[in-house]
Amino acid sequence: MPSAAKAIEYCRALAKFSEEPGRTTRTFLSPPMRDAHRLLGAWMERLGMRVNVDAAGNLRGVRGTGNRALVIGSHLDTVPDAGAFDGILGVVLGIALIEAIGKRAPGISIEAIGFSEEEGVRFGVPFIGSRAVAGTLNLEGLDERIVEAIRAFGLDPAELPTARLAADAVGYLEFHIEQGPVLEHMNLPLGIVDGIVGQSRLNFAFKGKANHAGTTPMAMRHDALAAAAEWIGRVEKLAGEAGLVATVGSIHVEPNATNVVPGLARVTLDARHGCDEKRRSSVKTLIGAALEIGERRGIEVEHTEKLDRPTMLMDEGMSGRLARAVEKAGFPVHHMTSGAGHDAMILAERVPAAMLFLRSPGGISHHPDESVRVEDVEAAIQTGVQFVVDMERASV
Amino acid sequence: MPSAAKAIEYCRALAKFSEEPGRTTRTFLSPPMRDAHRLLGAWMERLGMRVNVDAAGNLRGVRGTGNRALVIGSHLDTVPDAGAFDGILGVVLGIALIEAIGKRAPGISIEAIGFSEEEGVRFGVPFIGSRAVAGTLNLEGLDERIVEAIRAFGLDPAELPTARLAADAVGYLEFHIEQGPVLEHMNLPLGIVDGIVGQSRLNFAFKGKANHAGTTPMAMRHDALAAAAEWIGRVEKLAGEAGLVATVGSIHVEPNATNVVPGLARVTLDARHGCDEKRRSSVKTLIGAALEIGERRGIEVEHTEKLDRPTMLMDEGMSGRLARAVEKAGFPVHHMTSGAGHDAMILAERVPAAMLFLRSPGGISHHPDESVRVEDVEAAIQTGVQFVVDMERASV
Repeated sequence: MPSAAKAIEYCRALAKFSEEPGRTTRTFLSPPMRDAHRLLGAWMERLGMRVNVDAAGNLRGVRGTGNRALVIGSHLDTVPDAGAFDGILGVVLGIALIEAIGKRAPGISIEAIGFSEEEGVRFGVPFIGSRAVAGTLNLEGLDERIVEAIRAFGLDPAELPTARLAADAVGYLEFHIEQGPVLEHMNLPLGIVDGIVGQSRLNFAFKGKANHAGTTPMAMRHDALAAAAEWIGRVEKLAGEAGLVATVGSIHVEPNATNVVPGLARVTLDARHGCDEKRRSSVKTLIGAALEIGERRGIEVEHTEKLDRPTMLMDEGMSGRLARAVEKAGFPVHHMTSGAGHDAMILAERVPAAMLFLRSPGGISHHPDESVRVEDVEAAIQTGVQFVVDMERASV
Repeated sequence: MPSAAKAIEYCRALAKFSEEPGRTTRTFLSPPMRDAHRLLGAWMERLGMRVNVDAAGNLRGVRGTGNRALVIGSHLDTVPDAGAFDGILGVVLGIALIEAIGKRAPGISIEAIGFSEEEGVRFGVPFIGSRAVAGTLNLEGLDERIVEAIRAFGLDPAELPTARLAADAVGYLEFHIEQGPVLEHMNLPLGIVDGIVGQSRLNFAFKGKANHAGTTPMAMRHDALAAAAEWIGRVEKLAGEAGLVATVGSIHVEPNATNVVPGLARVTLDARHGCDEKRRSSVKTLIGAALEIGERRGIEVEHTEKLDRPTMLMDEGMSGRLARAVEKAGFPVHHMTSGAGHDAMILAERVPAAMLFLRSPGGISHHPDESVRVEDVEAAIQTGVQFVVDMERASV
């Protein structure tokens, strides 16, 4: 079977390993994770790779014995009711690539990793797998539930330090679906990720006054939802003007009854931009807008910062090599930023990292309709082969 | 004890008869309703009134045997976590007024009614008590749960037709707290309600597309919450321009996650105006605005009409008599409309009705902080005495 079709078939088979009947949900060290390890581990072994599961539950397979290793990885866990490709495709592509390389490029070892945890679903803590490998997981302060889950899976938490990246690792490469509509919109199969945008998350509370919807004149209201709605309009407008992506994704209103003027509205803000300064100044502007709206309406506004994660740039040398590989494989080179976080940004703290996006049909992700085109998977494999061959040559 | 202070004391005592410890919740024919009947029935009997509980659970007491009867009533049930005055004050005032009249105006009988149900909390069906008295309760189509509740309270549902207004009833008077801030704002103790505004209730659904908050460019989104927020701004603006009171009180968003562009937003509209034509044309404008916003944003908009209740005017003759009584009692006359529904609008279908509002401190209602000023209660009693005396005289 051609490599690309086989990769997609593997992803579809893995999607059946789920905690929930009829849909794909596979969280950190849940029972179906063992099935995923078994299926992919068997494939790795057939390719002659040395396979193990580290103490963080990452599936790892190594080809070759060179003194320079390229690490290729992505994650095996999913969101609830997931699609079949987010994360998993990157793991499968690593193995498919090793199969496609065959006996070529013997001078460089390749380690394929399926990270145990990226989405943060089971314990609200994301990137457990890649942080264990990068050595940035705080082992002393680790959530007891995580330690217990590791133990329950038959692994030894005391061995977590041994999960760290091998000393011979010289680069990290991750394949991942774009999870957005940009490549499809531009009619491109692949995109080179130059960086993962920084992200702010904040909670806002608009505290007005609940009142009778029939007896309270408009001019005497302190309507928390009307205030929040005005602010949501400002968020959208500023995002358009400042080139930000900014989202109010969640809202909770009290008492939330048809015939009561809302007394309280809680909303969230998610703002992302490739330039941290721009992002932070935009967030400041939006906080100011909320306070101004509240002041004018006699509504108290509170805000809490939940996350301020800076932009993480990929390695220029690795990204340049990836661009040349795309070109050699015969595809158009397009550089872009990622609006979502990925394991690559965790690994980038330790080793030169690069990342390749595959077009997401319809821009759909975190949904059973998530898909990928077989010709784009083929393009990614060909690009990967060029990349590995070029990396081996660079070491000569 | 002065009548006004006594009335307030009764209201406070009744607030302790509750289904829930520590807060006031007394729904249709719930066990504490029996305590309310006992306390108020005993007071009525001490005043020499003939007391009974009709088949709808309304507490009724009659003074006198004239061939013309004035009915004074309001409701005994409450919303969950209620204040001590909404409804109950009107019942207590009816009895306090009879006490204050004493042996005066012997030529007119007075029936005081405590309606069993107005708020619609227990079965989602409001005005059970007053509709039974007005004869507008659909007895054949009555909800089985209501029939069962009547039976469980020890009453006979077959007797419901006998709950109808006595043939000698010539007028209905209701005292009620304003439940809004207008009288307080105007520094007035009392307001004569000329009519109860018509009301529209609609549900709207904005159906956009859920997408990743990091990877979906602003220009490619179909954000259901952003669309709903824009529309909420339009509702507020139109209400200000058209003299409407219009409220978006409830919102539900899916998936309602910080990092997902909202795919669905359901909101409600509550619109009220004393002129039905104005209200209906405003609602039409707001439906048009929702469709226009949806069209522009690539979002499907659906709407469902849940209620279209016309304005109910009080009787001009009765309201004029009430205005004269307010004046004779020495208080400023102020006419207003009620933004909330009341038992008076149900009785107005059968008998000339009038309604008197008492100032609501802070405009607070449906809340434990709900209150009333003792001097305003005194003003209402004095007005009531003038009203009854004038009514008796008119019959001579």
